[in-house]
Amino acid sequence: MAQKIKRIYFFAKGKADGKGDMKDLLGGKGAGLAEMTRAGIPVPPGFTIPTTVCLEYFKKGMKVPSDLREEVKKSIKRLETVTGKGFGNKDNPLLVSVRSGAKFSMPGMMDTILNLGLNDQTVAGLADKTGNQRFAYDSYRRFMYMFGDVVLNMGKKVFEEVFEGYKKKYNAKDDTSVPPAALKSVVEDFKSIIKSKAKIEFPQDPYQQLFMAIEAVFKSWNNDRAIYYRKQNNIPETLGTAVNVQTMVFGNTGDKSATGVGFTRNPATGEKMFYGEYLTNAQGEDVVAGIRTPKPISELGKEMPVVFRQLRDITTRLEKHYRDVQDFEFTIENEKLYMLQTRTGKRTPQAALKIAVDLVKERLITKEQAIARIEPDKVEQLLHPVFDPKAKYDVIAKGLAASPGAASGMIVFEANKAVEWAQKGQAVVLLREETSPDDIHGMDASKGILTRRGGMTSHAAVVARQYGKPAIVGCEMLEIDAKTHSVKVGDKLLKEGDYLSINGTTGEVIIGKVPFVDPDLTGDFKTIMTWADNIRKLGVRANADTPRDASRARAFGAQGVGLCRTEHMFFAEDRIGIMQKMILAETREERLKFLDMLLVMQRQDFAGILKEMQGLPVTIRLLDPPLHEFLPKREELMVEITKLELQGGNPAVIAEKKKLLARVEELHEFNPMLGLRGARLGIIMPDITRMQVRAIIEAACDLLNQDIKVYPEIMLPVISMVEEMHAQKAIVIETANEVMKQKNKKIKFLVGTMIELPRAAITADEIAGEAEFFSFGTNDLTQTTYGFSRDDAGRFISFYRSYSEHCPVCGGRLNKDGVCEVCGYHVMIKPQNILSFDPFATIDVKGVGGLVKIAVEKGRKTRPDIKLGICGEHGGDPQTIHFCHDTGLTYVSCSPYRIPVARLAAAQAVLSAAATKHKK
Amino acid sequence: MAQKIKRIYFFAKGKADGKGDMKDLLGGKGAGLAEMTRAGIPVPPGFTIPTTVCLEYFKKGMKVPSDLREEVKKSIKRLETVTGKGFGNKDNPLLVSVRSGAKFSMPGMMDTILNLGLNDQTVAGLADKTGNQRFAYDSYRRFMYMFGDVVLNMGKKVFEEVFEGYKKKYNAKDDTSVPPAALKSVVEDFKSIIKSKAKIEFPQDPYQQLFMAIEAVFKSWNNDRAIYYRKQNNIPETLGTAVNVQTMVFGNTGDKSATGVGFTRNPATGEKMFYGEYLTNAQGEDVVAGIRTPKPISELGKEMPVVFRQLRDITTRLEKHYRDVQDFEFTIENEKLYMLQTRTGKRTPQAALKIAVDLVKERLITKEQAIARIEPDKVEQLLHPVFDPKAKYDVIAKGLAASPGAASGMIVFEANKAVEWAQKGQAVVLLREETSPDDIHGMDASKGILTRRGGMTSHAAVVARQYGKPAIVGCEMLEIDAKTHSVKVGDKLLKEGDYLSINGTTGEVIIGKVPFVDPDLTGDFKTIMTWADNIRKLGVRANADTPRDASRARAFGAQGVGLCRTEHMFFAEDRIGIMQKMILAETREERLKFLDMLLVMQRQDFAGILKEMQGLPVTIRLLDPPLHEFLPKREELMVEITKLELQGGNPAVIAEKKKLLARVEELHEFNPMLGLRGARLGIIMPDITRMQVRAIIEAACDLLNQDIKVYPEIMLPVISMVEEMHAQKAIVIETANEVMKQKNKKIKFLVGTMIELPRAAITADEIAGEAEFFSFGTNDLTQTTYGFSRDDAGRFISFYRSYSEHCPVCGGRLNKDGVCEVCGYHVMIKPQNILSFDPFATIDVKGVGGLVKIAVEKGRKTRPDIKLGICGEHGGDPQTIHFCHDTGLTYVSCSPYRIPVARLAAAQAVLSAAATKHKK
Repeated sequence: MAQKIKRIYFFAKGKADGKGDMKDLLGGKGAGLAEMTRAGIPVPPGFTIPTTVCLEYFKKGMKVPSDLREEVKKSIKRLETVTGKGFGNKDNPLLVSVRSGAKFSMPGMMDTILNLGLNDQTVAGLADKTGNQRFAYDSYRRFMYMFGDVVLNMGKKVFEEVFEGYKKKYNAKDDTSVPPAALKSVVEDFKSIIKSKAKIEFPQDPYQQLFMAIEAVFKSWNNDRAIYYRKQNNIPETLGTAVNVQTMVFGNTGDKSATGVGFTRNPATGEKMFYGEYLTNAQGEDVVAGIRTPKPISELGKEMPVVFRQLRDITTRLEKHYRDVQDFEFTIENEKLYMLQTRTGKRTPQAALKIAVDLVKERLITKEQAIARIEPDKVEQLLHPVFDPKAKYDVIAKGLAASPGAASGMIVFEANKAVEWAQKGQAVVLLREETSPDDIHGMDASKGILTRRGGMTSHAAVVARQYGKPAIVGCEMLEIDAKTHSVKVGDKLLKEGDYLSINGTTGEVIIGKVPFVDPDLTGDFKTIMTWADNIRKLGVRANADTPRDASRARAFGAQGVGLCRTEHMFFAEDRIGIMQKMILAETREERLKFLDMLLVMQRQDFAGILKEMQGLPVTIRLLDPPLHEFLPKREELMVEITKLELQGGNPAVIAEKKKLLARVEELHEFNPMLGLRGARLGIIMPDITRMQVRAIIEAACDLLNQDIKVYPEIMLPVISMVEEMHAQKAIVIETANEVMKQKNKKIKFLVGTMIELPRAAITADEIAGEAEFFSFGTNDLTQTTYGFSRDDAGRFISFYRSYSEHCPVCGGRLNKDGVCEVCGYHVMIKPQNILSFDPFATIDVKGVGGLVKIAVEKGRKTRPDIKLGICGEHGGDPQTIHFCHDTGLTYVSCSPYRIPVARLAAAQAVLSAAATKHKK
Repeated sequence: MAQKIKRIYFFAKGKADGKGDMKDLLGGKGAGLAEMTRAGIPVPPGFTIPTTVCLEYFKKGMKVPSDLREEVKKSIKRLETVTGKGFGNKDNPLLVSVRSGAKFSMPGMMDTILNLGLNDQTVAGLADKTGNQRFAYDSYRRFMYMFGDVVLNMGKKVFEEVFEGYKKKYNAKDDTSVPPAALKSVVEDFKSIIKSKAKIEFPQDPYQQLFMAIEAVFKSWNNDRAIYYRKQNNIPETLGTAVNVQTMVFGNTGDKSATGVGFTRNPATGEKMFYGEYLTNAQGEDVVAGIRTPKPISELGKEMPVVFRQLRDITTRLEKHYRDVQDFEFTIENEKLYMLQTRTGKRTPQAALKIAVDLVKERLITKEQAIARIEPDKVEQLLHPVFDPKAKYDVIAKGLAASPGAASGMIVFEANKAVEWAQKGQAVVLLREETSPDDIHGMDASKGILTRRGGMTSHAAVVARQYGKPAIVGCEMLEIDAKTHSVKVGDKLLKEGDYLSINGTTGEVIIGKVPFVDPDLTGDFKTIMTWADNIRKLGVRANADTPRDASRARAFGAQGVGLCRTEHMFFAEDRIGIMQKMILAETREERLKFLDMLLVMQRQDFAGILKEMQGLPVTIRLLDPPLHEFLPKREELMVEITKLELQGGNPAVIAEKKKLLARVEELHEFNPMLGLRGARLGIIMPDITRMQVRAIIEAACDLLNQDIKVYPEIMLPVISMVEEMHAQKAIVIETANEVMKQKNKKIKFLVGTMIELPRAAITADEIAGEAEFFSFGTNDLTQTTYGFSRDDAGRFISFYRSYSEHCPVCGGRLNKDGVCEVCGYHVMIKPQNILSFDPFATIDVKGVGGLVKIAVEKGRKTRPDIKLGICGEHGGDPQTIHFCHDTGLTYVSCSPYRIPVARLAAAQAVLSAAATKHKK
């Protein structure tokens, strides 16, 4: 039998059933309302239906639990008592808002309904009671619009078209200029639309309205946007949403009323300043939706100084109470202030650092708490280049600096196009009148966002800050023509695909591209990183293939190179030809000749990296890919030869091509991933191994001669058996000794292996007998453990992750019948929810991680002091770093830009391990 | 410091340092000589240098241990005392034989030298003493010939040519007809040849001869033929060979002398009859080499009745002593019998069964011992078809029935050609004058062997029996012309490539092909299998894709089908077209239409197999391979389109081809092994899963309607996560319930999974929550565990296994410089010894087996009664079966012909596990 679940958490007049720490149950919003009510802050009374009810709803196959209605009715009665109003009472109607509220804030994702309780009778009563026809019918209009959109799934457009028609008819500049009589007609028109499109009468019974709205909120937990957002942000599907039913207060009763949102500190820069926006005579979503550009909060101090002081006091108290920046919503009804929401404010990475450091200085939090609060993934954005301050550029417009950072890209006017172009590898800037939740995927795909409307708390600004994308909003100089896909800025006309740059830190819109430079990494960044370094136990190294990578990595705090991929060096234009000749050589003598040419180049490569990393270890992986990767493609050669033959081409050329094809055919593999590569190649062609080791040790000796300290670590890839390790290590040692003897130098170097095949993990005890270090190649280990070819598995992995919009075959968009718009492939069933994460981004702890654990345990058994690292792309992923810390690895290695992320995540791993221990 | 190793094991006159159970140390031959000496059997005195000295020789980089010479000299002195002869004494010379002898008999592999101690002086003394010039110089000739070949590596040919020249000159029919004076010239010619070719004087010092010969035996342990033989028979490289130095006795002193070999029972049929062959006035290798056709042993009873009786007595004693058939060698010197060797006799599979059953009847061994003695791998040969007794055929010749069984194939005259043609998939019969160790690879590649010369103990006969190949020897009617590659038999002329059939059971040579029928599996076979079934714990199932396979498997004793591969059904000619249309379908409706057509066919397939296996479980695996396997090849289409375009082909055809190519491109995968296949495909295209499940359950219901009991087990392939299992199982159950409801029947079926990916093994506890059985797909599991693509890895796996003769790129033969004769690829280094077995034939216990063990443990934890099977090709491999027994699997599944092998191996696993337990 189901456990009896508490259905309702009531809050009113200083008392609340809930508390601030009950976010799991009440969602962030519900918990905040309860906490504020308890703290004596003016909050309109209401109640919260907890997340558990939502989960029960889905568990029962989308059926509202039978006892919920009764409980809701009881709670409405209590609200009537508290407010002295009546639900459906035409003389003094109680109106409520219905809003979702999950544990984690999901801006724009969940749906809200205001003014619920209005019907043909109560609207008249409201008009009479307030003496404000315009207000009453405007409220009714808004309610029907939201009800039609959210509850009846009719979309916004049908309603907007009607309203826009009236605005035109009455020549109204904005919504508030539409006369009351016209609003009455609007309402009647809305009713007809609902009847004709949704095939129901607009419900006049407030309870019916309420139950329908509650169910709609439940359902919205699983709408496409919500699912997409959760996937993107790794929020579990199993949380559910709470529903908040709260007495309406009205910011739209006239000029003494207003509604607004704000932050206790600047969410873009972190600066300690009261920050926010409001609109007089407006309701709810008006500010955030960016329909009218709102006024800065400082204006409120002039308009209503008492209310403003009260607001400052309350929000300051809230910040101290929660020990973090607060993002709040308020409504002023006839000069009376109500707080509608408070929650931890989202912030840019820059702001996150500044706020954390400032709160430590203000003694509100400890250094450890400061570290624990920063999202490591976001820190990467701080490292990306900014506009070169010395560069000259042409500023064509200015807007609100909504989200800092610099971006250059081709302009696009639609979210879908942004995704499409980004997938082709193009940098795009999304240019919109305003953004809505429908644009999220496009914003995510863009380098930066630019809108004509909206303020600092508009949808575009909030989402951009959250994604760490540079954004400028409210740039009213833009004249966007959505139809021709062009924009006029003054006398300049830009078309889709033209380059534009935006500086989200200054609000400057620039024509063309602007050169970038590396950002300044001192100040708060350095402070936080130093704190993190003092806490973390894991070493952090970089994956770096060039001296430039190495230099950048060192600047970002790398303690060595964990992976230098030598094959990238062979793909360079001046080398691929020599590499090909080496492969095609018909005698050993010939092959050695080309290897000698490669030796000179490789020595220089290694010298450069070793020098940059002087004093620190550098792990160099010997040749990894199969040889055919360096040769022309088989099928292309086949077609080329067929063409030459049919067109009577030069027989000598044809013969030459055929010879090349023969060699390509010899090297062709059905599953190159599992073929002749890495150590296997080194065993069959030891001259390649010899050349590479010679290059490393010669470079090291030459540097040592200049008193530069180097610590090369030679790493053998694709080892599955200790016997392979043994055979290759013998060649490494022999060659190194030979070189050191010739150069009369002694280099301290290690020989180790990648652990990237399940067998290597399972027999790690044997392999550790030969290997002085292990580096987990979790990319390949994930491929073989799952049996997922990274190049091929995308098509079903995305399907497994329930990206309903993508075709499992070609990645194109699916239409609603499941037919791909690109390749026409027909997906027969609804997408699955088989994978809750991408195993190529975050380590699969159970499977791949299970093998890593086995290898760590067995490796240490044979060689207790074995160095253990990870160098797959997982090395820079915070969740993986937690796993690496818990598993006791020595270091993680990641791309240079992920180094600070890793430093921070490694420190957080220590803190959360300590917290877990403490709990136990 | 090296341990002091005993250098010499002496044996003479009833006393011996060694014993019969010291085979590891003294080799089979040395242990046998010691044991016979101890038993008072007449054995020429001698001594054995143990295998440990050989290993020391290789360990020291091929240097003879320093103290060996002294020890050998001491032992020769002891032999002089015992025999009263002098080593190098010209009046009464002591001559010795030097022979290799490893733990396992390796016929024809290791080399022998007879008559050592002869030089220009002692040969004259021997002639004087015996009054037999011919004997003395014939012995000297033989010694020089063998010394030149084996010790000086000059090969046989140079010597044979000289001798043949003399034979021609003196018009000698056979060797014994060459007059003594001519033999003296032969010897002088041999000396000159040695001097000119080997650049040394033939050594006259007997000790120098002896030490060189001993070292040559050591070296022969690592000659190519020995290495190849060991690989083929899984004999470890680390055993080494012993060296036996034994006083010569002479079968070539005249008509009262003879030499022979024999068996205590018929090695071809197992019949209890004294069996052997001899030659009067002959020495050593003459009988086995097949140069003269020897006389059957029964003749000896007439020629020398006393000696014959003595021989019968001795060999009967030996058989009882060793409790097994003995293979012996003897020499009669002037009517005095000497035993030169006794060892367990090699036998055909037929004989092995008969002998085992007979020995149990004779109470010499127990049933368990009988079971333990039979090599499971060999039993398979008993199952292969025999000539249809009702068929009419044209017998063109008769020879000795040397190895039973029937074979049809194209005739070839050279071993290399046999290998070459066999690699192309052709059945060949190797036709030779006689065979030598150089022909072994060709014999192995042939279906049968036919020789003109040689007796039942000739090289061809011995090797054929050992390999279980049908063979006829001594078929003197054949007139082989090696130059024109043809053979005349009476008036028939056959050329290379013509078909010939041989019946090794009757000795009949038949022109053309003969139809085959299944063999009779009653009698000894049934007896042994019944004993095995009573002992074994593992179930044995078959991999069967057709009713015919299933029927055969059931006849061979299968207890169910462990793997029915449904995709093979789609490749059939009448189905591939429908399958392609199903894949290319552009709408679901279209796809369902073709699936419906496939449904009818599959239902029939399943009904057939389920009916054959009624009362037994049948595991049916749903579609496994990626879809593109059913479509034309991408590169071929590309070339075809290019051709059509350039040649102005029909635009409609080109468009059609391009459309096909587009779909092929969509489905193209870089690593199909790790791509969209198995359950993944079933998840994305559940209609395929539905169709297959419907076919199975409909067939089952229809059979149940006929009161036929069926137990389908539905198996999902390529599962890496429990979530995949969950999603597919839901479809299986839903479809099955639907069908059962429609048919109003209740079918007992299971749903389980392959464990063929490392992640499935590691997370087996989760997967067992859904799966009612596991079947280990060790083929694929080996691929992903090692990272070896089976299609590609051959090139380096053969290299890893040190098949020095094969190119790692194309598999062609390598010349001595390491250059491939086929593709010209140059192997830069000596082959490695990295893999001691083929992991695709025998399970890799450490790695793949390690994962199997983890899965078994985890699976049982969740579901204690889970059925556990193995259905990779490993399932029929005896070593793997031992592993499966030890790991506690429920059953193994293998190809029908391996069923009896598996039944036997499973019983042996019980016996060896008991023995191990007993030891502990």
